Parts: sequence; C-alpha cells; structure tokens
Amino acid sequence: MSTLFNSKDLASMSSRYRAHFINSLSGFKSANLLGSINQEGISNLAMISSVVHLGANPALIGYITRPQTVRRDSVDNILATEVFTLNHVTPEMLPAAHQTAAKYPADISEFSACGFTEGYVEGFAAPFVQEAEISIGLRWIECVPIRHNGTQLVIGQIDWVKVPEAAINDDGYVAIESLNSVAISGLDGYHQTRRIGRFTYPDLEQDPQVVRSK
Amino acid sequence: MSTLFNSKDLASMSSRYRAHFINSLSGFKSANLLGSINQEGISNLAMISSVVHLGANPALIGYITRPQTVRRDSVDNILATEVFTLNHVTPEMLPAAHQTAAKYPADISEFSACGFTEGYVEGFAAPFVQEAEISIGLRWIECVPIRHNGTQLVIGQIDWVKVPEAAINDDGYVAIESLNSVAISGLDGYHQTRRIGRFTYPDLEQDPQVVRSK
Repeated sequence: MSTLFNSKDLASMSSRYRAHFINSLSGFKSANLLGSINQEGISNLAMISSVVHLGANPALIGYITRPQTVRRDSVDNILATEVFTLNHVTPEMLPAAHQTAAKYPADISEFSACGFTEGYVEGFAAPFVQEAEISIGLRWIECVPIRHNGTQLVIGQIDWVKVPEAAINDDGYVAIESLNSVAISGLDGYHQTRRIGRFTYPDLEQDPQVVRSK
Repeated sequence: MSTLFNSKDLASMSSRYRAHFINSLSGFKSANLLGSINQEGISNLAMISSVVHLGANPALIGYITRPQTVRRDSVDNILATEVFTLNHVTPEMLPAAHQTAAKYPADISEFSACGFTEGYVEGFAAPFVQEAEISIGLRWIECVPIRHNGTQLVIGQIDWVKVPEAAINDDGYVAIESLNSVAISGLDGYHQTRRIGRFTYPDLEQDPQVVRSK
C-alpha cells in the first residue's frame, strides 16, 4: 500500500525526520572516505555518500559539500593543497568509517582517531586509506556553487587509481562487488551487494543479454 | 595485489575500456528511471545512474546529463514542461529498464517500447512508472553547466513522493532495501543489496551503535 506525500506533507515533517526521509529517496549511494591534508600536515578523513561520476574523458568525479554555514575541513584542505583522495569503504571498515563524521577538532586527524592508516603516492600530497581496496587520487579543478542551499559540487580530475588487478575485467569493468565495496542508503544505512547481472550495450535490434564477467 | 594506474596509464586506455573502468570507480550508484513528457504528449523514460542528493530542506535532487553533443530528450522535456519523475528500479524491472537507454526515435515512448506503464499524479504533467515501488515528482529549478565536459547538473525540487508506508521507519528512514531498490556499478552492472546495519549519529563520546530499524 503506497502513500502519496505532497509538498505540504514534506514541509510539515520535523527537520530530523525529513533529513532521514529525503536522504533515503535518491536511492543507493557510494560509500567513500575522503582523504585530505592541510598545509601544516594535519590529515583529515571524512565519510561521504554524494560522490558522482561526471565523465570518463577527461576522467572527472564530483561530490557535494555540506553548506558553507558549517566547518568543512575537507574543502579547506582541498582548496589549500588542490588534491584529495577517495577510498571505497568495505564492511571491515565499519563502523569506524561512519565515526569519521563526528565533529573532531580541526587539529585531530580522523585517520588516527578512528584507526585508519595513511598511505602516500609519491609526488601527491593527500593521503589515501591503506585499509581500502580501491583508492583514487584527484586533482581539484573547480567548486561549482549550488545557490539554492549553499552547497557546492567539488570537481576533481583523476590523477591515479590504486585497484587490485584481479577485479579488473578485459573490457575495463572493475568488479567492485568482488572487493566488497559498500553502498549507503539514507544518512546511516550501510549495505553489501550481490550482482544480479551485467547487460550488453542497449540497442534497438535485440533485448539486453547478460554479459559474462568476473 | 594492487596496481597503481597513473594519468598516463589512464590516457592510454581505449575509449570504451576507459568508460567501463572510470565509471566503476565512483562506487555504487542509484538505479532510477527518469520519466518526462514533451508538449506534444509523447512520454520518455531513461535509465540514469547519476542521481545525487543535494539537500533535505529545501528537498533537492540532481542528476548529471550526457554532454550537449548528443540528443537528450529528457532534458528537452524538462526544460519544456519543468517537471520530471524519478522511479527506483527493482530486479523485476530488469533488463527492460536497461533497454530504455537504447536510441529510440524521439517520437517513440520508452514506456510502451520497453513495457512500462505510465501513471499520473493530478496536476503534475510528467508520468511516473507504475511498476516502481518508489516514485518521486520533481519541479525543475536549474541546470548548472559543468564546463569541463559539456554536461549539466539538472536540479529539481521534490514536489511529491509515492512510497509504501510499510517501508518507512518512525525516524523517517525509508528501508529502500526492503523494497528491493537496485544499485548500479559501472555502465552496466546491476546489484541487489543486504543491509549490514544502520549506525547512530556519530559523536565524540561513544562509538557508533547499531540502530534497530525495519
């Protein structure tokens, strides 16, 4: 039995209830730890669920910041050093990855506070998470303001990728499900996945077929 | 055994290989069918994996378009009617939902071509997908250009939500996993999910606890 909520129903929800409700509606989201560092060498690690693929050539990834009304160490670090990393969360990294979202003081690194290990790629200032199976190094190229709510779309270009060879298919598909990457729903729901199937490129001549893939 | 790919390695990949590879890296993505209609009454349905939560108050959701170099019926329809819907994909809707991405002529509706049923909310022009468990009606408010690759972030404000009552928790969390919403990886990988857990709001006083939830 479905219920239809109209805009008045949504407006009448309490702030916390609406946050849970609306955050659930966009569907499953990626679980990434954002690694950054400030110019004094203090690292930062932050759980984010708003990473979005923007394009493959150039290879661009974006994420949505919180509004400018709150402290945002990651954004400050990215603007200062112009680099950051994204690191896929696995079940073993929970609930520590969730805990990185607590309001630690700016001079405390969530790496050490939450039990993660910094790794570095030569010539790249931002730390990656050694516990992650997939890490991506990005060079910041733009913050696009979203004027309706004071958030920003932070865009980075992929500089390097660290990924286990065994998960890469001949056609380039990376079986992130085989690496146990986690999906998020709402503000606080974490999920494992099981692949239903990969399907052939859609065309008008035939129905999609299942693709053999690891 | 992990491999480090640098920017030269990425540049040397073939276009199709790189598309699969880079699309896999952002992590799991939502599987939504975008419903729209043009001013002649021809409906359109398009599979998208780039939906991103922008904020709960106002309730804003965005998605990334393809570059302006290709035909984009959905965007044209949204600009013309200023409304669209998002509809969560379930396993039963596959592979038909994937097939909506085939290049149907502009005068063919993917609803009928792929076997989906149009539904309408009174006073709202864009069709939703009756086979979906969760549907969201959005009013278009802005297209934000992403100048690096000719795509756009299309932003809509939620006008109505259709969701089964049984999936809504007392705190507002919608258990989309209980409704079998699907997650996507890469260009063509579809996945079911199993919840690991929900965790309490992160604070500095205690480690996250598992939240009881349906």
